[in-house]
Amino acid sequence: MPRFFTECISENIGIITGADATHIGRSLRMRLGDEIILCRNGIEYISRIKTISDSEVVCDIVASRKTETEPSVDVVLFQAIPKLDKLEFIVQKATELGACKIVPVLTKRCVSRPDEKNFSKKLDRLSKIALEAAKQSGRGVIPRVCGIISFNDAVEEMKKLSLSVACYEKGGKSLSELDYSNAKSIGVFIGSEGGFEEDEAQRLSKSGITLIGLGSRILRCETAPISALSIIMHLTGNM
Amino acid sequence: MPRFFTECISENIGIITGADATHIGRSLRMRLGDEIILCRNGIEYISRIKTISDSEVVCDIVASRKTETEPSVDVVLFQAIPKLDKLEFIVQKATELGACKIVPVLTKRCVSRPDEKNFSKKLDRLSKIALEAAKQSGRGVIPRVCGIISFNDAVEEMKKLSLSVACYEKGGKSLSELDYSNAKSIGVFIGSEGGFEEDEAQRLSKSGITLIGLGSRILRCETAPISALSIIMHLTGNM
Repeated sequence: MPRFFTECISENIGIITGADATHIGRSLRMRLGDEIILCRNGIEYISRIKTISDSEVVCDIVASRKTETEPSVDVVLFQAIPKLDKLEFIVQKATELGACKIVPVLTKRCVSRPDEKNFSKKLDRLSKIALEAAKQSGRGVIPRVCGIISFNDAVEEMKKLSLSVACYEKGGKSLSELDYSNAKSIGVFIGSEGGFEEDEAQRLSKSGITLIGLGSRILRCETAPISALSIIMHLTGNM
Repeated sequence: MPRFFTECISENIGIITGADATHIGRSLRMRLGDEIILCRNGIEYISRIKTISDSEVVCDIVASRKTETEPSVDVVLFQAIPKLDKLEFIVQKATELGACKIVPVLTKRCVSRPDEKNFSKKLDRLSKIALEAAKQSGRGVIPRVCGIISFNDAVEEMKKLSLSVACYEKGGKSLSELDYSNAKSIGVFIGSEGGFEEDEAQRLSKSGITLIGLGSRILRCETAPISALSIIMHLTGNM
């Protein structure tokens, strides 16, 4: 059943507007009485189409349930900014893999250094990619793609989570050595093409963020987040 | 230190020819006496450049050692053929993640169905991608990208390995439920965009190939191999 995210859900009625409405009528050629799933905040509403136009689809809500695809743990991906096409790819994959938030971070070795203004345009595109990936993979929430933050702010954000790790190519612990039993929120920090500077790694370590290694092969900066998220989702019973 | 794969290695001398030789002299601007690593079959040879021209670099071998980046287990990726750009991506990532062989398979739901002749041209390109990824990620061997085989042949190939799994979206075991302790070779079979047909899944299961699930979210056909390989490499102590 096709699924759509919308904020417009009352007790009995759900409304879809904009491009999704057009898509339902024109591309999917859905008709009155057809069933779709509306999603909001991890709840999915089995709904039946009541009225349909190019700009709006109104549905009767038939039943609701908690989305079963959401992981039991909130995993936040802190990603040092790589080239834009790689960031788009990472946002798509992190969404499929169940991340709840993606935070681009400016680190010393970032080659791509967009300014805030420039990035805000890109943010629209990245958020759209997260939305499409959330629909396609059956997520119950759309991961938020945040604006760029500094390395220092990333460290402070990670300190607030139950557990945080940073992938460091000069070694560290294995992801299996960590205790996830009480971890409600996990931060994963991945470097850019050049990885982390040594003083950044020291700073992370001193702040209680565990440096972890992903084996002896050198992973590209877009491969590392997919691997790390896959392994963490696996170790926490979510994959 | 830059690394190059070559078959031309004697006891004391190693030779690089072709594009790599040009690359060493022109792009890397290396000079006589500079050190490089030559790789063949999982052994790396620390070498010193002796003579250099646009078409040939001759090196003295200084020392040799087993490449430490090769996994302790041979993992073969059987990949139902997706669209070509996705296959290129999968070959690159599977190489970084340590796969020893990548076998494209024609299954019922493959939308892209290249014929043998057509695919042999693409095979050159795919092999080149594997080579470049092997150099970049520090592998000791270049994973072989095979020609297309049928579903039946894939099943027969997988039966020869110590352990084989197939990712099936309609569930199955978790990768952590398997016993890898005696597994010297592992086959991983991933479906195309549409996954496997039910009769294919049954056939796999009857042939002793374990159907496994990768969580409740729907992963794209290029995400599933990366996730599965990451988790398997992790569970076998190779990541």
